[in-house]
Amino acid sequence: MADLELMKELSRPSESKIILFTIDGLGGLPDPTTGKSELEMANLPNLDALAARGICGMVDPIGCGITPGSAPGHLALFGYDPVSCNIGRGVLEAIGIDINLKPGEVAARGNFCTLDENGKVADRRAGRISTERCAELCKILEEIPLSGVRIAVHPVREHRFVIIFHGEFLSPDVTESDPQQLGVAPLKIKPVSPKESGAVRLAEAANQFIAEARSVLYDYHPANMVLLRGFSVRPKLPIIQEIYKLKPLAIAIYPMYRGLARLAGMEVADGVTTLAEEIAVLKKNYKDYDFFFLHVKWTDSAGEDGDFARKVEVLEQIDAVLPELTALEPDVLVITGDHSTPALLKGHSWHPVPVLLWSQYCRPDAVTEFSEKAFINGGLGRFSSTEIMPLAMANALKLHKFGA
Amino acid sequence: MADLELMKELSRPSESKIILFTIDGLGGLPDPTTGKSELEMANLPNLDALAARGICGMVDPIGCGITPGSAPGHLALFGYDPVSCNIGRGVLEAIGIDINLKPGEVAARGNFCTLDENGKVADRRAGRISTERCAELCKILEEIPLSGVRIAVHPVREHRFVIIFHGEFLSPDVTESDPQQLGVAPLKIKPVSPKESGAVRLAEAANQFIAEARSVLYDYHPANMVLLRGFSVRPKLPIIQEIYKLKPLAIAIYPMYRGLARLAGMEVADGVTTLAEEIAVLKKNYKDYDFFFLHVKWTDSAGEDGDFARKVEVLEQIDAVLPELTALEPDVLVITGDHSTPALLKGHSWHPVPVLLWSQYCRPDAVTEFSEKAFINGGLGRFSSTEIMPLAMANALKLHKFGA
Repeated sequence: MADLELMKELSRPSESKIILFTIDGLGGLPDPTTGKSELEMANLPNLDALAARGICGMVDPIGCGITPGSAPGHLALFGYDPVSCNIGRGVLEAIGIDINLKPGEVAARGNFCTLDENGKVADRRAGRISTERCAELCKILEEIPLSGVRIAVHPVREHRFVIIFHGEFLSPDVTESDPQQLGVAPLKIKPVSPKESGAVRLAEAANQFIAEARSVLYDYHPANMVLLRGFSVRPKLPIIQEIYKLKPLAIAIYPMYRGLARLAGMEVADGVTTLAEEIAVLKKNYKDYDFFFLHVKWTDSAGEDGDFARKVEVLEQIDAVLPELTALEPDVLVITGDHSTPALLKGHSWHPVPVLLWSQYCRPDAVTEFSEKAFINGGLGRFSSTEIMPLAMANALKLHKFGA
Repeated sequence: MADLELMKELSRPSESKIILFTIDGLGGLPDPTTGKSELEMANLPNLDALAARGICGMVDPIGCGITPGSAPGHLALFGYDPVSCNIGRGVLEAIGIDINLKPGEVAARGNFCTLDENGKVADRRAGRISTERCAELCKILEEIPLSGVRIAVHPVREHRFVIIFHGEFLSPDVTESDPQQLGVAPLKIKPVSPKESGAVRLAEAANQFIAEARSVLYDYHPANMVLLRGFSVRPKLPIIQEIYKLKPLAIAIYPMYRGLARLAGMEVADGVTTLAEEIAVLKKNYKDYDFFFLHVKWTDSAGEDGDFARKVEVLEQIDAVLPELTALEPDVLVITGDHSTPALLKGHSWHPVPVLLWSQYCRPDAVTEFSEKAFINGGLGRFSSTEIMPLAMANALKLHKFGA
């Protein structure tokens, strides 16, 4: 893992600029009929040319065989240890709907569920009620008064919502009410350690909320109860500015990635909805920042859908805008992904992710094609995604020598 | 990092011999006009032939993107964790002038500086006085009597000197007097922890020395004061003999490398000034030792000077003496560097360093050329410099099996 203390010690501000272009779910697997992966099927003249000029390799976001979720995949790219920095489900759910959690707030993930006449869970998802119904019920829940604790209840999608508890000295170290099985009653929420007063307070507030929710939702079958889990607070990550002395801008469309970038201390550009807009925002802000996290989602979405051809298409669209990035003449351009999402697997996978780094000092290798197979023999070899930031910093000449 | 406790457990003495040939600053970068690195431009028939017979790879002395100083670069080659074993500036300055620090001695790096009429630092380097003047003033400083503490003051070069404090129970955990900026007075030296009596004693002695230095140097403008920093003691490294049960000899010309080898427990050959003399000493002592650290400096010097052609020339000189090494028929011959020093960057760099290992049991790969690009696809892959010692030991059949 990147040694963040060492980075703090060695990093220095400078004029040079780094672009970290993250193509979500970049790596794939060969289609059994053609024997070619998405990257190999795509026509990528600009990426191929950059691979020839740069240095290539393969990165593991977490470790051999470990399939990363989006959060750990991105934390690793930003240089954090994705295992020890694991972020609670409540926080992830909150940042996934663009909520910027403040210190002291505890977030939990909520499900509307169905209780039977005996008070046992009959459906953990309340028959997947509509998102509109969810929003309506969240408004009702938000009216529940709690002693000493304020709450906000935000709909997410279908039966899912986020609840934020706001009060003095609350601790998230409490158990969950979701029994994760049918035919049993929701569980009482308890402090993990009975002596931790902040956890005692939160457990009391949560149990009070749940009891009140039961009565206000009584007539809203199938959504006649709630289940809460993943109580968590915004993690205290050392921020990019402190570690690397960078002035970072995140350009991402989907809330989850914007939220993760915020946790790392990045400013987040607003109002972008297309790749063209992302590039336009990058150009517009180029002189005001020195680190750009540029995120493209649709490769991952296509992979998740098992849509090989669409993933190829998105890769070709990305290739087409690459000249606009290189025209900015960044000192360092890194192109990689947060994890692989092979269409063949219809989901994230454990496979290493291609990474390409270009800088004036990158020591080019013999790779001339942007693909998994070609990158195996790249000059960067195989390494941890957490080392990408130190490598980019070095190539931007933003790191002092270690020791004399 | 190499697990030194495991090495202690597994290592066994034997008749086999290892040569660790360290070409300082070995790796480079392509010249933008030719696209070829120093190694690629050099004519290296003997190194190429050995690459064809051996197994090759790339090593990171510290980690991705980290540019090593000479000390951490060598510590990693000797198998030590270069980050936790970081050696103080005072000690490095001392070993850099061939002083063999004893346990209990505290070394600090000193600068002669200029104070203005208000006692503020006007020049941290006293106008870079001559080395002769420095030597003369060091003699004067050495006469300063301190209660209960003896001192030795050694000139280094220009305004730089080393001071050694020798007394009972001195601790180096004190602050520095060098304010690292102009227009402010030198700082009082304080124990980092006010209760640590050894540090209190050293701080008192150092402050007394500084006060006396101010009066004896008063008329020696511009060198009318001293600044002290980097208080440190000889680190307690487990020695090569203990860890690997080797009888090691270091053959190096420059004091810094001789000093680092001594810290690792090596005997150091004296009186060598040329590559030919280094080889002669190796031959002469070959039967009396079983591990040889052979160090060549001039590749690094040429790189630091940005002199691509001279680095190529030095590499060719090294290639020319290689047959004399192989003629000794060592059981293991390792050829690598402590870090890269590309002429293009005029300094050390973060780039991985080529490593070649030859032994009867090395499992050769397909590499036939001694260069960065060729070694990328070598059988050793990319790994940590700290693993070179275990690998050399294994190839010398000096390690027992682990477990049953």
